[in-house]
Amino acid sequence: MKENYDLVIIGAGVAGLAAAMYSARLGMKTLCLGAASGSEAPIGGTITTTFLIENYPGFAKTSGRVLAENIKNHALSYPLVTLKEERVENVEKTDEGFAVKTNEGEYFGKTILFASGTKRRKLEVPGSKEFEHKGVTYCALCDATLYKNKTAAVIGGSNCAVADALILAQHAKRVYIIYRKEKLRADSANVKKIEEKQNIEVIINTEVVEVKGDKAVLAVILNKEYKGSKELKLDGVFVEIGNVPLSELAEKIGVAVNEGKEIIINHRTSETNIAGVFAAGDVVDKPFKQAITGVAEGCTAAWSAFEFLNRKGK
Amino acid sequence: MKENYDLVIIGAGVAGLAAAMYSARLGMKTLCLGAASGSEAPIGGTITTTFLIENYPGFAKTSGRVLAENIKNHALSYPLVTLKEERVENVEKTDEGFAVKTNEGEYFGKTILFASGTKRRKLEVPGSKEFEHKGVTYCALCDATLYKNKTAAVIGGSNCAVADALILAQHAKRVYIIYRKEKLRADSANVKKIEEKQNIEVIINTEVVEVKGDKAVLAVILNKEYKGSKELKLDGVFVEIGNVPLSELAEKIGVAVNEGKEIIINHRTSETNIAGVFAAGDVVDKPFKQAITGVAEGCTAAWSAFEFLNRKGK
Repeated sequence: MKENYDLVIIGAGVAGLAAAMYSARLGMKTLCLGAASGSEAPIGGTITTTFLIENYPGFAKTSGRVLAENIKNHALSYPLVTLKEERVENVEKTDEGFAVKTNEGEYFGKTILFASGTKRRKLEVPGSKEFEHKGVTYCALCDATLYKNKTAAVIGGSNCAVADALILAQHAKRVYIIYRKEKLRADSANVKKIEEKQNIEVIINTEVVEVKGDKAVLAVILNKEYKGSKELKLDGVFVEIGNVPLSELAEKIGVAVNEGKEIIINHRTSETNIAGVFAAGDVVDKPFKQAITGVAEGCTAAWSAFEFLNRKGK
Repeated sequence: MKENYDLVIIGAGVAGLAAAMYSARLGMKTLCLGAASGSEAPIGGTITTTFLIENYPGFAKTSGRVLAENIKNHALSYPLVTLKEERVENVEKTDEGFAVKTNEGEYFGKTILFASGTKRRKLEVPGSKEFEHKGVTYCALCDATLYKNKTAAVIGGSNCAVADALILAQHAKRVYIIYRKEKLRADSANVKKIEEKQNIEVIINTEVVEVKGDKAVLAVILNKEYKGSKELKLDGVFVEIGNVPLSELAEKIGVAVNEGKEIIINHRTSETNIAGVFAAGDVVDKPFKQAITGVAEGCTAAWSAFEFLNRKGK
């Protein structure tokens, strides 16, 4: 016998958890599904890998882990919310709603919310796969302390890349930021911090074309010379080159996505093109993706699901 | 000589203050304008009149005043933010941006954000104006304690009306909620609290057609009998019948509004129909208006203003 819910939320990052809280406040029986820490789409979401959060309005300074924990506890303060650490494997549309299969069970939702987030885009050059976890890493927060008095590079120019470099610079002897464009596209506040750090060097207009090493990473090869050489000796490579939306399960039931595989929503209501299906957070087609915008989209989605069920008289 | 800013924000409620914080993080010189407490569009905004906030994700329980103060201090932690307690009287479009006149000065913004909020809709029946501040009130949080062991009514059926009734019920002997429709349109969580309170009575499908009194309110006249009489004796009337968007200054420079006078925005970007003009918060055309959605719209607007200036190369 499947467990029945008014709303099943796929994803338990801050967007999904905030949606669960709002959904419960609206009297809906709500299931929120997130995978284990360390897997794709974990409970707490990708923000848990961010060390310092200074831009969630109301919290001048906190960590991603603490913010996610606050929002999780906020959601769980409502008995109508059930949070399960399970990996969603399939979603099917039925006459009455949506059947959701996880690695551990089957559930039914009258409505469904994709707050499934994104996964890291992988560096695809010779050596990058071979040296993954041997110097090539996708989590600065996890691995920064391993580089005490060593040299590492961050590949990328986003806020995330800059934040990684700042974390690394607290431990490493020298940190390079290698970015293919001319100008870091991070907040001025963070760029200023980078400029003030003596042990960070920014290498612009440059790409990494190969990762070299023996047992572990020893160097990267650049597509142009930097200080007279295309080879840059280092001990670690932190990759921050963007994210890929986790929208496959939504697409499978007919939810419209754009060319970047982001779920297309009505930004007033968080509705998708399919009745009863909503989306919020990093998986949607918003050019400006932040914790605060994803959280607001999640709350809006919960309200829209409530309105949808009211209209149907359920 | 006018002071120059990259972004001038009209309104210093939570949407405007969050926008100021984001704007400064993006390196923009930012002015945020809000009136004095007690006036229209005060610093902190209308949320400061809400006693209990349980639905801003991350804060399981806080007050409107504390939440607004947190977001204000968050904004003011950036030196690029200037907050002035001034009332905006006029906005004009110039070749280079926008001239903003307040009761105290004149400012220039390359871009402008309307986060001007709403004002209370007034009860318009015989006696309502005569007895304003003599029993007819628009601020439960300000006046609830005056009704200790007395009888009062809340007019309205929204979340705000229900929240007012709950505050009043802590002090008053008896509280009526008078609502013209059949069903309160508040969160289930709040409706449940109402049902559990012994001293709250809900009168549905009913309107107040007159306020009567001598020196102060003594009764209201209903459009139909309740318990055998159209006259309901009471000591106070709390009016919560909705809000009117403060969009006149925006409309004057050509910003498009809908029939409800809400500013029409692109909900992905918080852009209005006029280049360089953005809007966020209770003043915009969003069906679901909450602190969290207004704050997210404000942050999005700051980012859009930054992108706009970048595109113009300013």
